[in-house]
Amino acid sequence: MPSTDDDAGDFGLLSPLWAGTPVARVTSDRAVIAAIVRFESALATVTAPPGVAARIAAVGADVDPAAIARDARGGGNPVIPLLGELRSRLDDEAAQWLHRGATSQDALDTALALIAKDAADLIVADAAAAVEELAAHAEAHRGTVMVGRTLTQPATPITLGLKIAGWARGVAHAACAVREHGTLPVQLGGAAGTLAAFTASGADSIDIAARMSRDLGLLEPIAPWHVWRSPITRLGDALVELTDAFGTVGENTAALARLGELDDGAGGGSSTMPQKSNPVHAVLLNAAARQATHLSSMLHTAAITVDERPSGAWHAEWAPFRELLRVAGGAAAAGRDLAVGLRVHADVIAANVAAAADDLLAERARFSYGAAEPSDYIGVADDLITRLLDDARKVLA
Amino acid sequence: MPSTDDDAGDFGLLSPLWAGTPVARVTSDRAVIAAIVRFESALATVTAPPGVAARIAAVGADVDPAAIARDARGGGNPVIPLLGELRSRLDDEAAQWLHRGATSQDALDTALALIAKDAADLIVADAAAAVEELAAHAEAHRGTVMVGRTLTQPATPITLGLKIAGWARGVAHAACAVREHGTLPVQLGGAAGTLAAFTASGADSIDIAARMSRDLGLLEPIAPWHVWRSPITRLGDALVELTDAFGTVGENTAALARLGELDDGAGGGSSTMPQKSNPVHAVLLNAAARQATHLSSMLHTAAITVDERPSGAWHAEWAPFRELLRVAGGAAAAGRDLAVGLRVHADVIAANVAAAADDLLAERARFSYGAAEPSDYIGVADDLITRLLDDARKVLA
Amino acid sequence: MPSTDDDAGDFGLLSPLWAGTPVARVTSDRAVIAAIVRFESALATVTAPPGVAARIAAVGADVDPAAIARDARGGGNPVIPLLGELRSRLDDEAAQWLHRGATSQDALDTALALIAKDAADLIVADAAAAVEELAAHAEAHRGTVMVGRTLTQPATPITLGLKIAGWARGVAHAACAVREHGTLPVQLGGAAGTLAAFTASGADSIDIAARMSRDLGLLEPIAPWHVWRSPITRLGDALVELTDAFGTVGENTAALARLGELDDGAGGGSSTMPQKSNPVHAVLLNAAARQATHLSSMLHTAAITVDERPSGAWHAEWAPFRELLRVAGGAAAAGRDLAVGLRVHADVIAANVAAAADDLLAERARFSYGAAEPSDYIGVADDLITRLLDDARKVLA
Amino acid sequence: MPSTDDDAGDFGLLSPLWAGTPVARVTSDRAVIAAIVRFESALATVTAPPGVAARIAAVGADVDPAAIARDARGGGNPVIPLLGELRSRLDDEAAQWLHRGATSQDALDTALALIAKDAADLIVADAAAAVEELAAHAEAHRGTVMVGRTLTQPATPITLGLKIAGWARGVAHAACAVREHGTLPVQLGGAAGTLAAFTASGADSIDIAARMSRDLGLLEPIAPWHVWRSPITRLGDALVELTDAFGTVGENTAALARLGELDDGAGGGSSTMPQKSNPVHAVLLNAAARQATHLSSMLHTAAITVDERPSGAWHAEWAPFRELLRVAGGAAAAGRDLAVGLRVHADVIAANVAAAADDLLAERARFSYGAAEPSDYIGVADDLITRLLDDARKVLA
Repeated sequence: MPSTDDDAGDFGLLSPLWAGTPVARVTSDRAVIAAIVRFESALATVTAPPGVAARIAAVGADVDPAAIARDARGGGNPVIPLLGELRSRLDDEAAQWLHRGATSQDALDTALALIAKDAADLIVADAAAAVEELAAHAEAHRGTVMVGRTLTQPATPITLGLKIAGWARGVAHAACAVREHGTLPVQLGGAAGTLAAFTASGADSIDIAARMSRDLGLLEPIAPWHVWRSPITRLGDALVELTDAFGTVGENTAALARLGELDDGAGGGSSTMPQKSNPVHAVLLNAAARQATHLSSMLHTAAITVDERPSGAWHAEWAPFRELLRVAGGAAAAGRDLAVGLRVHADVIAANVAAAADDLLAERARFSYGAAEPSDYIGVADDLITRLLDDARKVLA
Repeated sequence: MPSTDDDAGDFGLLSPLWAGTPVARVTSDRAVIAAIVRFESALATVTAPPGVAARIAAVGADVDPAAIARDARGGGNPVIPLLGELRSRLDDEAAQWLHRGATSQDALDTALALIAKDAADLIVADAAAAVEELAAHAEAHRGTVMVGRTLTQPATPITLGLKIAGWARGVAHAACAVREHGTLPVQLGGAAGTLAAFTASGADSIDIAARMSRDLGLLEPIAPWHVWRSPITRLGDALVELTDAFGTVGENTAALARLGELDDGAGGGSSTMPQKSNPVHAVLLNAAARQATHLSSMLHTAAITVDERPSGAWHAEWAPFRELLRVAGGAAAAGRDLAVGLRVHADVIAANVAAAADDLLAERARFSYGAAEPSDYIGVADDLITRLLDDARKVLA
Repeated sequence: MPSTDDDAGDFGLLSPLWAGTPVARVTSDRAVIAAIVRFESALATVTAPPGVAARIAAVGADVDPAAIARDARGGGNPVIPLLGELRSRLDDEAAQWLHRGATSQDALDTALALIAKDAADLIVADAAAAVEELAAHAEAHRGTVMVGRTLTQPATPITLGLKIAGWARGVAHAACAVREHGTLPVQLGGAAGTLAAFTASGADSIDIAARMSRDLGLLEPIAPWHVWRSPITRLGDALVELTDAFGTVGENTAALARLGELDDGAGGGSSTMPQKSNPVHAVLLNAAARQATHLSSMLHTAAITVDERPSGAWHAEWAPFRELLRVAGGAAAAGRDLAVGLRVHADVIAANVAAAADDLLAERARFSYGAAEPSDYIGVADDLITRLLDDARKVLA
Repeated sequence: MPSTDDDAGDFGLLSPLWAGTPVARVTSDRAVIAAIVRFESALATVTAPPGVAARIAAVGADVDPAAIARDARGGGNPVIPLLGELRSRLDDEAAQWLHRGATSQDALDTALALIAKDAADLIVADAAAAVEELAAHAEAHRGTVMVGRTLTQPATPITLGLKIAGWARGVAHAACAVREHGTLPVQLGGAAGTLAAFTASGADSIDIAARMSRDLGLLEPIAPWHVWRSPITRLGDALVELTDAFGTVGENTAALARLGELDDGAGGGSSTMPQKSNPVHAVLLNAAARQATHLSSMLHTAAITVDERPSGAWHAEWAPFRELLRVAGGAAAAGRDLAVGLRVHADVIAANVAAAADDLLAERARFSYGAAEPSDYIGVADDLITRLLDDARKVLA
């Protein structure tokens, strides 16, 4: 097997959002190959003579992803050349049992489920950490009155605590959705999704997937889901909910950083301006949010299937699914960093409240509500902060 | 108030998918106006002197949507001119209490929640009916062996019952998601989402929304959700899951109609060819699936908010949300019609199996599984059909 | 024919962006029907006995779009019921010649081309007016030094003139693209795109479309384009380029309005806050930009065709094409209004420059460029303004 | 500098569409780094003392993309760490001149322009070759009568030559658009797009970019285009037009392969079924078409800019732009392979015509056009084939 072709390799150079993150690592080409091998080994554990599974598990370690990728074009998927490579490394008995009764989609769908679970775990952990940090900021700024703005203009006073508690709610609910949909079922259907090869060989075919699911830490499928892609799209939608929530954090942080009211602690530098301290965490969140929904939309486009394996739709799903895991992973990491680093410029906030005081109290004046100080709004917001943070913690508990 | 400008009115001429359907009716401009009036009346029920709510409810009946729409441009939303029109029709006391403490977004978000609930109920009912019809076809065709195809080519035998049971699963799970997310919370936040005007007037402000939610049949909000749009996007995602599921029915039906194995009973005519009997239900499902994900993607783009009311994102949400309800509604109606009308051409199916028999049994031959008749696959698929239909019925129960 | 069902009619209530605009009017359901009738009449002008075309043209005036829309579901397109309605109003000779040799797609594609041309003309005119207004602002503010910002933070000084000249460039190039692609070819292909019915009847079939194109003010087709949708997608892409350009104007105006440096003269009101003066033109531009690319993406999804008329893709194109014309039309109108109304708060701009002066000159200090006043940047930007405005005027000439 | 972290490297394992293609190679992370170095060297050629440019050009060869990618997160873009790495390898004089007066965006935008040009050249060459092959098939099948289908059902006869000539038209026009928009301008604007650092140093600043454009084979910019992204989106739209055109080839080939009328010569294998001969070229085209429009939509989302460098939008553009080049590149390669390998099963085509003969002639019968044989349609289509192929060749000349 030829050595990896470094020249064609990508390392996230155009994706600072996720380059070098743990999510990138657990979703790399090598991780996909390792997950396919795990599928094959788990299948053999259930179906093959003792010892075969271990031998299969042992041969996948150093397969060259570049060579497999290059040869995938012939059959349209990487499983076919990978099986060839694995068989060439196995003894005859193990080679015969390898993949027996399964189809390429079984291996690849289950492999993507495995990397998705690893990625989702990392994403949920980062998001939960971000929620905790945001909640602490919200508590700390229950009394920080600031300009509430609608359609960019001063509306009524709010508190910074209320604003940030709202961010925490959004991230918490989205993280909860990622957790709920982050574990997919094992895929096992065989050539046309009937499990026929297993059944014909005398096995209780649907039980094979059930046993594999326990081994692999995945869900037990009701039936093969080769042409029903909701397990994929639901996770995709949850990931977009998360990038939306973090995108809201990013857009607000960017807008308030432009006003000088906040910065995100990133202190991002410039290639030419020495004074620069850019809110790069927020920038990365905004970039993620602008990509994620389009990736999820690819998954939905790919979820309109035909036949027992579609002629293009399935093949369109793999790359955006992995990329969406990475984009959401990068957002979760940047969101946690932002939440940790967030700095409040209370002097600027107060000056902006003072400058806009007449406008901010106009609604109140119109409706003749007793006293009229911006600080009257602290108590109003306080209950809502408590409700929001309680809710955020509850959904993540 | 000038009469409706018919020339600018749209009636779904370019959307045969949903024109004339009940979902189109419950989401019309007039329905939105009626829902805004319901919001205002429900608010007055909780906050205003007795009798005011009823007077508000009474004046909205014949407001001209064309005039309101035209005047909406000035403030960027239709609530502002609608309130002006309503106030001009009310006595002074009711006019003063109308909308008191609320903001445009409270009225419009809650109104969209009301029409969404009506639409979702219709959609779920049609989808559930489609599932029942599909399940009956699946039961009826447990023994109908057909060509299983992957990447367009004969793979192994399957049964038509198994294929259709898979469609039922997809529609059932999606309908379940629509039902789960079809009821949104009441929106009530006031000018900048703090409920300040209510609190300042001495009310237990968050309780107002709770009482309104019981009146309106909507969820009770934890807190205002003006800049947290997951209630919208989750319903949107569920609707796309449904159009994906029905799109899968449509694509398969179209592919099998091209082969002559099925038709959808639509018997769609042509403007020029008298012999035509087109699978128009399937065509409409395919059209819906090609639109829906992009509409949902607009909702996600709009869910990245800034400030206490964003400067464009919120405004981008209304039209695609309504359109997505209609597209999904049209799909559910066409999907039910397809399921009712589906006709199986067993002779063509059998002939195609016979013609491809050698190919269909190649996998079996390779793995040397005993007997080799296409009909051997009936038993294999049977368990899966039962599991799929049980699951479909369970999630919809 | 039953009277229009007002209850199902939409008037743009959820689309303040385009409600009541001329583009909405020329793209209404009635306008589409009128355009279909123009197609049929133009076809008869070339192919039918003298007088038939005029009789066809005369009967379409008051067709009820709601009834046609409702009946469109049966065959999947509105042309079939419209032809039935027209035939019922025509004498036998004209009824026989109506649509003879054509197919539904010929009528609907050409009709959409006709409304697109009307819409594109209006859009280009508004965009060109916006460019002129922006150019005047750019000229007037060649000497207005302001904070240049990158990643939200002060970078180096720029001038407001340079910023606005850049906006003018974007709008001008996009308007040029809309003009270039705004006129589509006549569609005429007959049942399966071969023109067979015309040829068989002895006509020089391709010449029929050529003659119709001169009558209708559309392009002459090389051949039928029923399954080649680039004429549609190229206009769609150009419209998105325009909403991107105006969206950039909107986002910048909103950001600078939040800072108090600019307002857009809209003075948008609120349903509850009397002091409000919202930049509603900018808000509408931002909303348009968030919708348009998804609509164009639907058109591209629909441009992947199959057979001689696809089973869903074509049907998915009509609604988003019309909506995209309207969204772009609304953006062009709002963009022109913004450009007319734009107000510069020079005092705030100057104060922000003064406050950020050290940061703004840091790059200059690093590279030791002689004198270091923000006003040194006026001359630098001046040439670029001239180049940008010359270019903008040239592409629109 | 640490060695490349292979474990995180990707080689297209999940993208058989483009893995191993020349387009993947010229757009790799290493290629981007090389292009950035070319930008820096070209800049130094114009602005720095003799010899500096050559020294800069010499040091970039073996920079580790994984390390740069990892460090890009700090500032949000890869140029900042790359410049640090390059400076560490340069003598003091060259290090001082490196990037002098430029900004990260200048380097990255120009680098992406350079790889885009390389990719576009390859794409246009493959597409043009596909057009030639398709044209040859169209000529060869002027007399092959086949079933024309609309909404999946027999319509009227067509010829295979006409169908394929239509494919050639679509690919030719799209390739022409890619060629027209494949060469982007040099980006050179400096810190905030004013070229101030160059002007202040006494240079004729705009002339620097003009001279660089000749050196690099790119267009000469009118002015910096840092916040005007039409050069990017126009190429993106052209690439989607190409994937739409090839997607149409793919969908038709897949549909006809399911019917047995065509195969694409790919002979794609299976991991389990020995008999399989899958139309994998068509499958890859279908997969490409399902991804491309969403990638282009990301570019349009990123084209709505703010400030003098936006806080996320620019950062969202790089990855989808590169991926879109690759997806279109993979489609062009697969499309050429399909066109080369296309095989016509004339016997199946003829049998299907015979079976549907009555339906196919129903339109003709209705309008009473003389003789009624499917072969009468050959002459009708012949002129159109000639017109389509002449047009395809003309736009590519």
